[in-house]
Amino acid sequence: MRFLITFSYNGSKYKGFQKQKNAITIQEKLETVLSQINKNEVDVHSSGRTDALVHALNQKAHFDLDIKIDKEQLKKAMNSLLPDDIYIKKVQIVNDNFHARYDALKKEYVYKINLGEYNPFETNLIYQYNEKLNIEKMVKALKILEGIHNFKAFTKVNNQVKNYTREIYSTNITLENDILSISIIGNGFLRYMVRNIIGVLLEVGKNKLGLEDVVIILNSLDRTKACITAPAQGLYLKDVFYDM
Amino acid sequence: MRFLITFSYNGSKYKGFQKQKNAITIQEKLETVLSQINKNEVDVHSSGRTDALVHALNQKAHFDLDIKIDKEQLKKAMNSLLPDDIYIKKVQIVNDNFHARYDALKKEYVYKINLGEYNPFETNLIYQYNEKLNIEKMVKALKILEGIHNFKAFTKVNNQVKNYTREIYSTNITLENDILSISIIGNGFLRYMVRNIIGVLLEVGKNKLGLEDVVIILNSLDRTKACITAPAQGLYLKDVFYDM
Repeated sequence: MRFLITFSYNGSKYKGFQKQKNAITIQEKLETVLSQINKNEVDVHSSGRTDALVHALNQKAHFDLDIKIDKEQLKKAMNSLLPDDIYIKKVQIVNDNFHARYDALKKEYVYKINLGEYNPFETNLIYQYNEKLNIEKMVKALKILEGIHNFKAFTKVNNQVKNYTREIYSTNITLENDILSISIIGNGFLRYMVRNIIGVLLEVGKNKLGLEDVVIILNSLDRTKACITAPAQGLYLKDVFYDM
Repeated sequence: MRFLITFSYNGSKYKGFQKQKNAITIQEKLETVLSQINKNEVDVHSSGRTDALVHALNQKAHFDLDIKIDKEQLKKAMNSLLPDDIYIKKVQIVNDNFHARYDALKKEYVYKINLGEYNPFETNLIYQYNEKLNIEKMVKALKILEGIHNFKAFTKVNNQVKNYTREIYSTNITLENDILSISIIGNGFLRYMVRNIIGVLLEVGKNKLGLEDVVIILNSLDRTKACITAPAQGLYLKDVFYDM
């Protein structure tokens, strides 16, 4: 039986989602717990990896179990065995040909920035920028990136990536109690793409770059033309959307 | 010159405020940093200790420095040397006879409880109760404790404590996005007093105790008649008030 889970995690203590040697990862924690429940090895396939220290609010993953188990029972069993910084929100039963990664139609990422006073309770959860930004200008800059573009300037160059074209469907910026939340919905994201976009937006927000510079950076297809990568701790994979 | 600081800390990694052997404490961190700045040992006197894992939003402490240093300069120096879970919000210069503990007139504590779904981002910051409570009944129960009472039933019996009488000036309960915040303002608090009050309130909120039971517990002066101590991670020292 194939299961789809919706789960959240506080990425502060993890080297990212994807399993790797000598590092604590979300995938390893999930597979350990599921293999224990299934009494047989289980492979977990997520909608995509998240990097070290990055968080997720509604990450998705599928896996197959040999045993018969009720959805609510599985949710309870997983949550009782998982560490307290990973939480299973929902368990669904899906068709045997469903794939959490290949069937994902779009994803939403949110990046959180504290523009107010430093907050020692948010160190690992919200980027502590602690300065004012020109938000109106950032909204305009982000709009420039909407649509279909080659985002090579916003990612790590990698010989295995053949296609740097992605579509950003919509963006949104909100400010509440000094916390700026920048949301980006797209059909897919290249490695570090959101954090590199935020890096450029921060320079725009402090008036170090103009809107025309954003166009120049985008068209350059050159990573060295963009700005520094924004820190991982402000980034959340918020949602993954499927047609079902 | 005597300084008064207002500071916040995320208590998750600390064995409480007060210095002790072989344990990481807030006081030790402050004294290490201040002794470094002062180039001579500094003793820090807080408004009172907080227990292991307990947080503070506006804790107060005073200390004397031999060197001449500007308030803003001191704030900057301290924040650059302190770990990222302790933050100096304000530095003031006070009279040489000011004492952060003896001059404190009242204190406010807040206890936070998540009644909604488990949240892996709040594990160390908000008590994850994750069930509904009868809030109206809790408000009434808390009102019973307002005024001047002997709070012996709500503290650890200690031969060094001669007077168990304290005054609770006011209480308040608010609910926002499933987070219950219980505020208690009083002239002073006995060890574990707030967490023991919350322990009783939780039993009232799940209808295991009636309002008459709260009166019986209070009048018993007997710790064994009260309920379990609520977990430390939901507790915040919110404010300390002085006449100045």
